[in-house]
Amino acid sequence: MTVASAVPVSELPLALTAGDPAGIGLEIALKAWAQRHARSLPAFVVTGPVDAIKDVAQALGMTIPVLSVRSFSEGRSVFSTALPVLDVPLTTKAVAGTPDTSNATAVITAIDLAVSAALRGEVGALVTNPISKHVLHGAGFKHPGHTEFLGELAAAFEPTARVRPVMMLASDELKVVPLTIHIPLKDVPGAISESLIVETAHTLAQALTRDFAIALPRIAIAGLNPHAGENGSIGSEDAAIIKPAIARLARDGLRVTGPHPADTLFHAAARASYDAVIAMYHDQALIPIKTLAFDTGVNVTLGLPFVRTSPDHGTAFDIAGRGIASPESLIQALLLAETMAGRRAAALAMRG
Amino acid sequence: MTVASAVPVSELPLALTAGDPAGIGLEIALKAWAQRHARSLPAFVVTGPVDAIKDVAQALGMTIPVLSVRSFSEGRSVFSTALPVLDVPLTTKAVAGTPDTSNATAVITAIDLAVSAALRGEVGALVTNPISKHVLHGAGFKHPGHTEFLGELAAAFEPTARVRPVMMLASDELKVVPLTIHIPLKDVPGAISESLIVETAHTLAQALTRDFAIALPRIAIAGLNPHAGENGSIGSEDAAIIKPAIARLARDGLRVTGPHPADTLFHAAARASYDAVIAMYHDQALIPIKTLAFDTGVNVTLGLPFVRTSPDHGTAFDIAGRGIASPESLIQALLLAETMAGRRAAALAMRG
Repeated sequence: MTVASAVPVSELPLALTAGDPAGIGLEIALKAWAQRHARSLPAFVVTGPVDAIKDVAQALGMTIPVLSVRSFSEGRSVFSTALPVLDVPLTTKAVAGTPDTSNATAVITAIDLAVSAALRGEVGALVTNPISKHVLHGAGFKHPGHTEFLGELAAAFEPTARVRPVMMLASDELKVVPLTIHIPLKDVPGAISESLIVETAHTLAQALTRDFAIALPRIAIAGLNPHAGENGSIGSEDAAIIKPAIARLARDGLRVTGPHPADTLFHAAARASYDAVIAMYHDQALIPIKTLAFDTGVNVTLGLPFVRTSPDHGTAFDIAGRGIASPESLIQALLLAETMAGRRAAALAMRG
Repeated sequence: MTVASAVPVSELPLALTAGDPAGIGLEIALKAWAQRHARSLPAFVVTGPVDAIKDVAQALGMTIPVLSVRSFSEGRSVFSTALPVLDVPLTTKAVAGTPDTSNATAVITAIDLAVSAALRGEVGALVTNPISKHVLHGAGFKHPGHTEFLGELAAAFEPTARVRPVMMLASDELKVVPLTIHIPLKDVPGAISESLIVETAHTLAQALTRDFAIALPRIAIAGLNPHAGENGSIGSEDAAIIKPAIARLARDGLRVTGPHPADTLFHAAARASYDAVIAMYHDQALIPIKTLAFDTGVNVTLGLPFVRTSPDHGTAFDIAGRGIASPESLIQALLLAETMAGRRAAALAMRG
């Protein structure tokens, strides 16, 4: 599908969901807004609880004007002087560090609101603050995570389109896609398949071209076993699953290499040889990017009909309310969302 | 056991095994020797094929005097002016890049010779160049790897001692021990156990104190599953195996923390909170250290009755004979072996 947009994307604000109100989401939204000039941030409108945001500002001694707005375009027009919020009131007053399942509906409504706006082309991109799956599951939320929920919302909007969201972690140093994510390590070998690798690589290649302006992206695929199976002597999956997938992708015209031993895939010289990596599982992807770019990594969802990024950290209930949360990853997420949305819009415009 | 040593360790040379003669071992030994003054290297004596070493020097245009010696002490006395070699002739002339199983016996004899010298206290430590398991297995070698072979040699020398070698990767940035090593990923969850973690942590703590002069070492233990199992919602092993092991180690008086999510365990701030990490499997340990210290990591074997280090790379048959192999990891291995041997000797001397 193509997102309709009468207004040029560069003039649209971004939608920023509040995330769990007991986490650090509201604090880092305020801190990011305070750096809007210093960091040349795009205009963004928070979907979330305006009272709770004012409470956090007051509790942390931040003199930031927080303004309830009725639309994203109104939000855009006030952004330079106030943090604009499309209000989604909480059921129960938020307590920093202590999540409350009675607020789950408000958390989800804020996401719904932002996704709808993205699908209607009222915002340039979607940036999401962290939610707690535990809290939402306690309230009957059925999706394994944020990303899968967004995929379902997008699919419901456009039922004929095939929407399979793909998670990418991106920083200046490295872009990496975990093929499998939040599953036990013992289930990883059974969860990887030739078709999953092929489908993921195509989604990744398309995104690298459309959203990152890389004409012929080079994708490196990590092996599953130590030394990528060492010629079949350490496990069978590298030869039986990953190699055939790479051969198929090559026949499809993609520039794909591997399976590469994962341990030697992430030092500086190796990183110069590719644009992105597909890793087989969570830690294989996240260890290198969080080692290289702990504060600045951004979580990007590929394969959606809109651009979506989020900071590469969780709700951080343990430090919520103390004023010490870093807005850096959110700032990077806002900047990357703007860049990606601009490139995607330019690509669509060129295609007519 | 205590290694007998009449001569102070600091005056003993190191033994450096040649490794596979078709790999880069001979080249990097020559290159390291050439930097003996610039890098303040300890004296070392190669156990290996003196003719093959001379051939490599000539082929690469290195004008380095290579001298056949009859003992390690003789080797030490000539080290400043020539590369000393305790000759172990090959069966078949070595061809760079093309390993030959008929030379397997010579490769193993060179290791035997060096280990015997280490056990007799004739050398301060053992540094080993890479061998190829495939080549040696083709010749009937039965050990899964270098480290296990050394463990067996040491155990045979002292049959009553319990020798279980533990592999550690060490660099200035990070020291990390993989609990399991060259096994398929699917076998990892079944291979980790409370007793293996406890035993490994004790070996590591002892080595950090004795060989690295850290009085009360802080050991961080990584979780197995994403987010260390996220409170039991992603896999059972973190709660069922790793937590009880940590509790037991704490009762034993060790400073041990975890299970830590592996993805957030290796950035600079996290690394400041521990002295070493125990990771659950090969890539979880090797991705971070090779990302942070690709050229300078050293492989250290703990739990042996002598100090053993080796460069953190393989035989590199693909670049052998071209003169482009970096001796950096071998140089680091020589320097670390000397430091560790000196500390261990000092610790033994203090105990009387």
